[in-house]
Amino acid sequence: MREYPTLAAVDLGSNSFHLQVARVVGKQLYPLDSLKEMVRLAAGLAHDRKLDEACQLRALDCLKRFSERLRGFPTHAVRVVGTNSLRVAKNAAEFLVRAEAVLGFPIEIIGGHEEARLIYLGVAHSLPASDNNRLIIDIGGGSTEFIIGTRLEPNKLESLYMGCVSHSLRFFPDGKISKGIMKRAELAAQTEIQSITTEFSADQWQEVYGSSGTARALDRILRLNNFNGDKREGITLAGLEAFREYLLKVGDIRKIAIAGLHPDRAPVIAGGFAIMFAAFKELGIPRMLLATGALRQGVLYDMLGRVHNEDMREVSVRQFMQRYRIDSVQAARIESLSLALGKQLLANYPDEETVEDALHLLSWAARLHEVGISVAHSGYHKHSAYILGNADIPGFSKMEQMQLSQLVLAHQGSLTKVSEFLSNFISLAQSIALRLATIFYRSRMNIELPPMRIQAGSGICKLFISQAWLERNPLTETLLNAEIDAWAALKINFCIQGTSAKEDFV
Amino acid sequence: MREYPTLAAVDLGSNSFHLQVARVVGKQLYPLDSLKEMVRLAAGLAHDRKLDEACQLRALDCLKRFSERLRGFPTHAVRVVGTNSLRVAKNAAEFLVRAEAVLGFPIEIIGGHEEARLIYLGVAHSLPASDNNRLIIDIGGGSTEFIIGTRLEPNKLESLYMGCVSHSLRFFPDGKISKGIMKRAELAAQTEIQSITTEFSADQWQEVYGSSGTARALDRILRLNNFNGDKREGITLAGLEAFREYLLKVGDIRKIAIAGLHPDRAPVIAGGFAIMFAAFKELGIPRMLLATGALRQGVLYDMLGRVHNEDMREVSVRQFMQRYRIDSVQAARIESLSLALGKQLLANYPDEETVEDALHLLSWAARLHEVGISVAHSGYHKHSAYILGNADIPGFSKMEQMQLSQLVLAHQGSLTKVSEFLSNFISLAQSIALRLATIFYRSRMNIELPPMRIQAGSGICKLFISQAWLERNPLTETLLNAEIDAWAALKINFCIQGTSAKEDFV
Repeated sequence: MREYPTLAAVDLGSNSFHLQVARVVGKQLYPLDSLKEMVRLAAGLAHDRKLDEACQLRALDCLKRFSERLRGFPTHAVRVVGTNSLRVAKNAAEFLVRAEAVLGFPIEIIGGHEEARLIYLGVAHSLPASDNNRLIIDIGGGSTEFIIGTRLEPNKLESLYMGCVSHSLRFFPDGKISKGIMKRAELAAQTEIQSITTEFSADQWQEVYGSSGTARALDRILRLNNFNGDKREGITLAGLEAFREYLLKVGDIRKIAIAGLHPDRAPVIAGGFAIMFAAFKELGIPRMLLATGALRQGVLYDMLGRVHNEDMREVSVRQFMQRYRIDSVQAARIESLSLALGKQLLANYPDEETVEDALHLLSWAARLHEVGISVAHSGYHKHSAYILGNADIPGFSKMEQMQLSQLVLAHQGSLTKVSEFLSNFISLAQSIALRLATIFYRSRMNIELPPMRIQAGSGICKLFISQAWLERNPLTETLLNAEIDAWAALKINFCIQGTSAKEDFV
Repeated sequence: MREYPTLAAVDLGSNSFHLQVARVVGKQLYPLDSLKEMVRLAAGLAHDRKLDEACQLRALDCLKRFSERLRGFPTHAVRVVGTNSLRVAKNAAEFLVRAEAVLGFPIEIIGGHEEARLIYLGVAHSLPASDNNRLIIDIGGGSTEFIIGTRLEPNKLESLYMGCVSHSLRFFPDGKISKGIMKRAELAAQTEIQSITTEFSADQWQEVYGSSGTARALDRILRLNNFNGDKREGITLAGLEAFREYLLKVGDIRKIAIAGLHPDRAPVIAGGFAIMFAAFKELGIPRMLLATGALRQGVLYDMLGRVHNEDMREVSVRQFMQRYRIDSVQAARIESLSLALGKQLLANYPDEETVEDALHLLSWAARLHEVGISVAHSGYHKHSAYILGNADIPGFSKMEQMQLSQLVLAHQGSLTKVSEFLSNFISLAQSIALRLATIFYRSRMNIELPPMRIQAGSGICKLFISQAWLERNPLTETLLNAEIDAWAALKINFCIQGTSAKEDFV
């Protein structure tokens, strides 16, 4: 992967959109510029889990402004991530088409677990060095992340499906704050957190940090109103209880006016407060300090890692190969042959960066295509596809996991189940390469490979292969001939051209 | 489980149906009686993967005769298993309704892996004691099982999707046998076997046994025609080659007439031969001896094990808990509470044996409901359901796995996705019990359980629970209240009745 002097990350959060630009100096990042807009995407989801038109327009307007700032950035120097609202919106796919057109860069949806990992990466880089176990809580607009880590290593990652926007809409839809309503909001949050209590309780960490807008607002309110009662910084249970009394006294979100609270934050402070209060009670937190790092910084550090051969995705692939006890010798055979075939198939593809990404994905799929054997040998490609589509694989976006899953599903058996995936030429080339590699190495032994050459175009794929070798290997020939029928089902003409010794390619 | 003096097993194979009755003496079985009919179920699947009416009628006629022999047997003394044709037939469910009505006993479809395990169990009991690793090959009508085991323990189990009926129909549909057709049939079988060659090659075993009708017929033909060339028993490559020459010389299945071949077997001998020949070549088998045991004996020994507290399903559940690193302390809490609640809910159910089975399944589900955490924490119940529905779990039938999977899917989140499953009262009771148990133990800690009592009827479930305890445990109360909505979506009235100390039940 190329190195760029300037990187940019965009975080399409459920409450705010953030753009962060940073300069790269060695393995360090120096912030250059940042933009923030409260788009409140999660509020547009209220009724039918579809982003309504008003919120889509707010989002597109914001992205138009962001796109101006990103003009001239190379594709690989920018990473745009979407979080919970885009994870759950039923019409996310349609919105993404519009959003990418306006922004001019691809948008990746990341899972809650991956979001937590990136938040930790951003936060950890912003904190002073320490060997303490640190608990990070990030209350977003639509989800709340809990992470425990030491230095730059996260040890536990969880994402709960509630955030300041969604919780405010659920419990305070008309703005009213009563004692009963507040209690219900807190109990609902606490029951969510309860499922992770044993893993995140007070004996598991020595320091606690908050990294979201909600934490920042609460910290400021508690400090400016001296709610903690002492002069020390941070958020305490006593401070939260004092603010709670204020909220109950005011009784209505629209009447909140208190030092430290920006009017933009007021509509979502009651929901955010309930989650924070529940976390303090359930996990026994004495004091939370404010961290400056956040998801967007994590995204930047993750990009930087990819440049410096510390691609988290590589680490995850190796971990998964171990965890699922994959036959690594066979995986290496399949990887090497499928990459050789993939390179030939994509040799004339116009965009180099796309080919580079495609070959990375092919290499990962080649190494992971047998994870499903852990479930059952028969139909293992379907089980592999399920695991790769659903597991938390650190470093991967949802889209990358989906491509990995589809590619692995396509490597065995009928192709009609993946016809849509294969309508893309890159996916088609990857699938041909992976299918052929598993055919040649079906015996799971090191074999003398035939001289061969492969090319593909619209609706056609031609394999030139030594006729003499085919005759010596009738089992492989039988399997290759079966490919003709498999691809014919998708109206793709797969031809096998036997070559004589004179014509053979090496 | 009760002990019965006489047990019966019925094997609804793709080529033949078998009934085996045996007397139980201690841990040994003595055959009393057996029936066999060539129903050739797989032949009825030829066109659209649906069992055609003619073959269904053949099957029902046969089952009618079997039912006469089984008259008076208690339900738990009979086990009826279906194999490949019933695994793949699209209209298997409809056929099973008719078949169970005629037979008068429930029919279980078993997976290929489980079929291989039961075949090994039957074969191993029929062989002389030895510490050798034994390869067993069982060419059925629609699938072929390969097993390596020592004494009564299978070490490797595979089921390949080809059998003597399906292979004959695929390659010799008009009866013609030419050199080219035979070669294609053999190569197709060999490529299937190739996927398991490294695991089943000659360095992995010292003895080879064949256990199917195909092996029996080939053994007889080779012996009566002295095809092996020596006077020794069994099947050899030389003997198979001699028979192959005979087949090519005759050139037509309808003209085969050779000593040792029963006319019933003739229509499927060419396909069966091609598979056997491919196995000999691909795995390097020098000589195969005939084993008398088979699937039906394995089914009987498996039933006997369940009586003697050696239920394979119990062993599998314990193995899965280890393999998926399940928190066994939490599993024990959930199991104990869900069984207590399940017993209350099913207290008035008329059929004791059904209740016994239902509580077994509930106990397994309680211990396995967290297997999916290995994939991802969020939505783990869906991943658990996927694994339990798709994994090879020795001892379980397909139907039992499906019930396990659905019950685990029902234990969290919305219930609309399992509404069909919950239309059965037993499933409903199991689901209520498992859901409530996970609610009470959500904190994963040992807690003081409240005095409570539960009952359910048509469209209603009432939980009587100490009001004082609820007030001390508002988080659990919040979760219990959420159950009211969850069940309301299925039009089931879930009521929580707070009780005073005087009324409390223990």
